[in-house]
Amino acid sequence: MKTGIIKPRTLSGFMELLPKEQLIFDRIRDTLSTVYRQYGFLPLDTPILEHSEILLAKAGGETEKQIYRFSKGDTDLTMRFDLTVPLAKYVAKNYSALSFPFRRYQIGKVYRGERAQKGRFREFYQSDIDIIGDGSLALMNDAEIPSIIYDIFNRLGLTDFTIRINNRKVLTGFFSMLNLDDKAEDIMRIVDKLEKIGQDAVAKELQDIGISEEDCEKILTFISFKGTNEETIAFLNHLKAQNDVFNLGVEELTFVTNAIQAYQVPEANLQIDLTIARGLDYYTGTVYETCFNKHPEIGSICSGGRYENLAGYYTDKQLPGVGISIGLTRLFYILNEREYLRQDTLAPADVLVIPMTDDVAPSIRISNAFRKAGISTQIYFEQKKFKAKIGYADKLSIPFAIFLGEDELSEQKVALKNLSTGEQQILSLEDAIQVVTSSLSEKENQSIIDTELTSRSSL
Amino acid sequence: MKTGIIKPRTLSGFMELLPKEQLIFDRIRDTLSTVYRQYGFLPLDTPILEHSEILLAKAGGETEKQIYRFSKGDTDLTMRFDLTVPLAKYVAKNYSALSFPFRRYQIGKVYRGERAQKGRFREFYQSDIDIIGDGSLALMNDAEIPSIIYDIFNRLGLTDFTIRINNRKVLTGFFSMLNLDDKAEDIMRIVDKLEKIGQDAVAKELQDIGISEEDCEKILTFISFKGTNEETIAFLNHLKAQNDVFNLGVEELTFVTNAIQAYQVPEANLQIDLTIARGLDYYTGTVYETCFNKHPEIGSICSGGRYENLAGYYTDKQLPGVGISIGLTRLFYILNEREYLRQDTLAPADVLVIPMTDDVAPSIRISNAFRKAGISTQIYFEQKKFKAKIGYADKLSIPFAIFLGEDELSEQKVALKNLSTGEQQILSLEDAIQVVTSSLSEKENQSIIDTELTSRSSL
Repeated sequence: MKTGIIKPRTLSGFMELLPKEQLIFDRIRDTLSTVYRQYGFLPLDTPILEHSEILLAKAGGETEKQIYRFSKGDTDLTMRFDLTVPLAKYVAKNYSALSFPFRRYQIGKVYRGERAQKGRFREFYQSDIDIIGDGSLALMNDAEIPSIIYDIFNRLGLTDFTIRINNRKVLTGFFSMLNLDDKAEDIMRIVDKLEKIGQDAVAKELQDIGISEEDCEKILTFISFKGTNEETIAFLNHLKAQNDVFNLGVEELTFVTNAIQAYQVPEANLQIDLTIARGLDYYTGTVYETCFNKHPEIGSICSGGRYENLAGYYTDKQLPGVGISIGLTRLFYILNEREYLRQDTLAPADVLVIPMTDDVAPSIRISNAFRKAGISTQIYFEQKKFKAKIGYADKLSIPFAIFLGEDELSEQKVALKNLSTGEQQILSLEDAIQVVTSSLSEKENQSIIDTELTSRSSL
Repeated sequence: MKTGIIKPRTLSGFMELLPKEQLIFDRIRDTLSTVYRQYGFLPLDTPILEHSEILLAKAGGETEKQIYRFSKGDTDLTMRFDLTVPLAKYVAKNYSALSFPFRRYQIGKVYRGERAQKGRFREFYQSDIDIIGDGSLALMNDAEIPSIIYDIFNRLGLTDFTIRINNRKVLTGFFSMLNLDDKAEDIMRIVDKLEKIGQDAVAKELQDIGISEEDCEKILTFISFKGTNEETIAFLNHLKAQNDVFNLGVEELTFVTNAIQAYQVPEANLQIDLTIARGLDYYTGTVYETCFNKHPEIGSICSGGRYENLAGYYTDKQLPGVGISIGLTRLFYILNEREYLRQDTLAPADVLVIPMTDDVAPSIRISNAFRKAGISTQIYFEQKKFKAKIGYADKLSIPFAIFLGEDELSEQKVALKNLSTGEQQILSLEDAIQVVTSSLSEKENQSIIDTELTSRSSL
């Protein structure tokens, strides 16, 4: 006996997409993995649950509050809240089985119990790449990362974005020149908020931690320098020779910025920005952020940097690395909400075969042939009115329908209908496969982000 | 200050693969999605966490004990333990936005706190497809499922497997003819264990629930019938006309078995087996199991069936469906442990470019060209001895290396080395791309399961 019906609902802060959205989401995710693979990154898939002791080795109070932590039996468990800590554990654990530089990508769900609000998710995909060295890692790797970011967004159809690059040593060195070494971390955390809260608020926060008005002025003037990459590098070189850390930072930044040119990332998409600090104290060199030029309010959609040591909590080995992370769920949410995603170009099938006779065997035979040719094909088996069958294909945006009636079967032909143009042709099986295949390869080249939409509007 | 090192470890029962294993795992997973998409299934990705009330609407005591359930704030949460309950919730919740038949696939992790033992996992991938009808669903869909199973295993390189098919109505009808209607569910659960525990144990268990020795004999004789599909159908037809449910079951089984032939699934891979009952009481018609012929001890690697109503706990709508599930993590574990997986054919990159000059710009330019041609390419940037660089490619099974020295650069050539044959050629960039591309397309056609291994040994 049924005991009443439970209202079907999904947890708040947990994204669950309708089929058409899911197709687009998957296309974006697949684009990311394709580019990562093109650059020789290994896939990694670590558990979602780990010993709390492992995940919280480093965590501070803020993280502790936001995590999903619970016990099962005697085991203290935590759901991963990022993909970096599991990577650190993995590399430390499997150190002797890995080849360095170890290049890995991971696209996976992470969990944070943040306050529920629009556009904030508690379960969301992160998409990370990291290159880990054993003892050392060539600086050239820092130059490769922007190229990967560029390729990804370019493939998705985005053009109006900027990869901003900086070097933490430039900042720490500069603060050191002002004799503010002991406050460097705090200053870094505060200036990182510049875009969000503005100059005045940053100045106030800096003064709150005891920075003099004069130093405050100097810091703000320094980080606010605007110019071409060449001009910024000239500006920095002009300040050199006073501090070793600063000098090294300028050299690294110069080297990386020059090296990126070989990757043919347009200067319009890559800019040195001295305000980029990344709040986290584990970045030690190059840092990256990526933003939509006309939507600074969205903040960075792809961030990362160079760190000295990945896995100090789990091993004595020195494992420097460089990496970036894309908040995939958030990126999708933004693009979807602002209607920048091309609608109705993705469908569960390329062809819907509609049998018009009682014997469905010929429909099956023809579908097998289509599938063998790499065409995704569904047969509509249900007993419905003809209009309902076509309506089904329409609603799912399936681009082609094939009708198989007595006439077609006796002539060994198929009736192929292009559902967007309405054009219908009687063709041999081979010709029908040909028509569908060439239409699909045209579509393949369409990016999922609609460039017309993005230029017309403001992304 | 560091406070000592925490031993890096992964929870027991949680699979975490080394890079080469992960490449193979991903290839298998991608093969599954490719086939699902070829048949027009929509991807679905539901949350891993749900309200406990939702996931446990149906669950009995056994499930409750095995689940990962906890509270966060006021919310009672459970990690999903299968992909069926989330599907039921999804379809009920989004009913009006979906087009029926709704064909979805989902490959995702599920969680069961089972007793830890070798080959048993607490976090594992399930790979499910279901076809859901609105009110009704054509029986032809039941005939399509075995074709999908066949395509998947065939693409993976498996040949020696049997899809076993039966119909629950045949069994319930038969038990009803023995006037055992009230015990039908229990009998079903017991005979389902036939392969695992043997005839004698089944007979004993049947007698324990009060079945007479004579009926026991009849049941065992009936389900043990062996013959070709044609012979089994003749045998069943011979028993017809005594019970409506039985008759309907025989008709359905006959229809489905005949219809499968149009899909060109070889009879060697598809057999009616009257012992297949599936323990779960929600299957009501066609049922499937799939096993390796020479490894009955592994049990079914792909099971499912037809059900009357997917989402009765969440909606009044009648939603019949048919589906199957593959325990992907377990399947991978079995194939990997028995060494049936082709080793060293998958690598993070197709080409390792090794710069032999200080200026790496030409290496970057050439790598860009390779990537544009769809070839996965890594540049080795580290300052190491030449031997270490080649050793890196070897360890990662990267099939080709490209050396770029002064000579090659001045002649606008590249030195391309095939690392498995040792052959080295000086080629133009275009020719090098050509050589690598054709070698890769040969490899593409290799199945991941080594058919030589499987015929030589016993899978």
